[in-house]
Amino acid sequence: MHRPRVALTMGDVAGVGPELIATAWIRPELHALCAPMVVGSVAVLQRALDAVPADRRPRLRPIATPEEADPSPSLIPCLEPAVAVDVAQVPPGVVDARAGRAAYDYLGHAIDLALVERIDAVTTLPLNKEALHLGGVSHPGHTEILAERCGTPDHAMMLYLPAERASDGPDAAAGLGVVHVTLHMALRDVFAAITIDSVAAKIRLADRALRPLTAGRRPRIAVASLNPHAGENGLFGDEEIVTIRPAVERTRAEGFHVSGPFPNDTLFKEALSGTFDAVVAMYHDQGHIALKTVGFRRGVNVTLGLPIVRTSVAHGTAFDIAWRGIADPSSLIEAVRVAARMVDWDRRPAR
Amino acid sequence: MHRPRVALTMGDVAGVGPELIATAWIRPELHALCAPMVVGSVAVLQRALDAVPADRRPRLRPIATPEEADPSPSLIPCLEPAVAVDVAQVPPGVVDARAGRAAYDYLGHAIDLALVERIDAVTTLPLNKEALHLGGVSHPGHTEILAERCGTPDHAMMLYLPAERASDGPDAAAGLGVVHVTLHMALRDVFAAITIDSVAAKIRLADRALRPLTAGRRPRIAVASLNPHAGENGLFGDEEIVTIRPAVERTRAEGFHVSGPFPNDTLFKEALSGTFDAVVAMYHDQGHIALKTVGFRRGVNVTLGLPIVRTSVAHGTAFDIAWRGIADPSSLIEAVRVAARMVDWDRRPAR
Repeated sequence: MHRPRVALTMGDVAGVGPELIATAWIRPELHALCAPMVVGSVAVLQRALDAVPADRRPRLRPIATPEEADPSPSLIPCLEPAVAVDVAQVPPGVVDARAGRAAYDYLGHAIDLALVERIDAVTTLPLNKEALHLGGVSHPGHTEILAERCGTPDHAMMLYLPAERASDGPDAAAGLGVVHVTLHMALRDVFAAITIDSVAAKIRLADRALRPLTAGRRPRIAVASLNPHAGENGLFGDEEIVTIRPAVERTRAEGFHVSGPFPNDTLFKEALSGTFDAVVAMYHDQGHIALKTVGFRRGVNVTLGLPIVRTSVAHGTAFDIAWRGIADPSSLIEAVRVAARMVDWDRRPAR
Repeated sequence: MHRPRVALTMGDVAGVGPELIATAWIRPELHALCAPMVVGSVAVLQRALDAVPADRRPRLRPIATPEEADPSPSLIPCLEPAVAVDVAQVPPGVVDARAGRAAYDYLGHAIDLALVERIDAVTTLPLNKEALHLGGVSHPGHTEILAERCGTPDHAMMLYLPAERASDGPDAAAGLGVVHVTLHMALRDVFAAITIDSVAAKIRLADRALRPLTAGRRPRIAVASLNPHAGENGLFGDEEIVTIRPAVERTRAEGFHVSGPFPNDTLFKEALSGTFDAVVAMYHDQGHIALKTVGFRRGVNVTLGLPIVRTSVAHGTAFDIAWRGIADPSSLIEAVRVAARMVDWDRRPAR
């Protein structure tokens, strides 16, 4: 089976994206996992390659189509889409409208290639929301851009923390995926968005997303609660009774391995200890506080429900340390690993 | 200076409270920190002492007043208040109305002794909310009982994670305290309870609570946000702009070392790394998810704003492992350490 073709989109050129591509490129596991190519600025990538030792620095080859890519540790193919702005002069570590606009265009080009199956997956480097906004793009982030470009009404964002001992064999530990029912909205608006249908939909997405990561074993899904102490039987809010539990019961009747809602102060610790493969979280901070507080250096962001495979590093542009060659490519490697597993799973003939 | 007199209230006798008192009692640091006494059932405590080796088992002495207490590692004074129920026959590990009622009465008695300064502090073992309810007590937990009995309108619950290397010297690392603006209420009701006044009040309480733990250094306080990405400048909710930031500015003008509101997905990790001494959290799960997910074996629960010093273990009754002698007394020892530091601080003549 040929290696999946994974496009690494450069993201905001003022951030850590370009150097992470360079430092990940010289790691053999990247090439074992996939056939990578870069979608971004050739000029910027050339500069970013200074972050790796000269004797291991790959040669950069500009390409016009993904079919030309012939990647190896010593050759880095870079596809530069026609963009309206020149990013070659964008200074490091600052918000720049050009960088925001270009990041959006790189992503859009990669999505289009994936939709027509000229590549197998997209793994994205971070973009900066403020630069995006200055560049004329109003979406709050990658997830919303992807959902719109793919025409996907029912999507979700998953934070995924790989198991400590990553392995690609059939007994691979699954790690923990946290799928969010709601994401970038005011906490005040969350209540209207949490319905039996929306919670059930995310439970189904969580199951589908984790299957490739549990080697086909039915993922064990726990559903978070909305209120403290899971509402204490209706004493502190009734969403657990009226909405969340019915969604759990409906999907359990459909055959999913799902339980909850559970009180959140113990749920995430339990889940991280291996009791569950996925948690369905009700709102952004619930999942993000849990995973990012425990340390998330190797964390991955996965968009669920798309017609394409898309993973991302879980960190941001890190302007404070960008272009100093000290950013850690672990999250990028893990993001590619997850993308490769998902592609591999999709290709299997029977399951 | 004499050791502070700390009453350990037994909590729910079906839970891990009694055995934790027994196993903590034989640890020398308990006696170095304070002059402890037990408020609870003599019969139950006698049984619980089986959890410690016979050659180190203290002798139990029933007392009628706190002044009779003469504690040592080999002598455990137990004050049994007149309660309406007999708990001697309560079975381990199950919800029992008698245990709920008695736990409430032990707590009430200890509070009354502390209010008249016949003891210096109360450290509580866990109670079970359902047993409390069956026993005719409607409060959701310790914090609310304490606030009512002490007649305290402006109180707060703090989760406190001690620094890894505990020390009682002047350079003691402060650990991290998380003070909650709202606690046991539906998430839907949080919005009305978060006001400039309520947030400012909790900032002041956090400062006062952390002073004894930072050896008088002005505590560095971070304030959490309510909405994802701290509201992204009003894009996802405006409470940060309308309420939280004004509260930070008001208290900063009063001289507090306070900043925020910060996005929560990175705030707690930063704070745990030592950047801050306290976080003011907006709602129950925010603080609880952060601290309990990172592991909270040594965690302490402190009630702020009371006229008395009260700390508690941060775990629950743990019915699943109760009365098997395997519960870990670390949290109890830390709770006593915090109580002792707070008493010591209150006694200092000038600051």
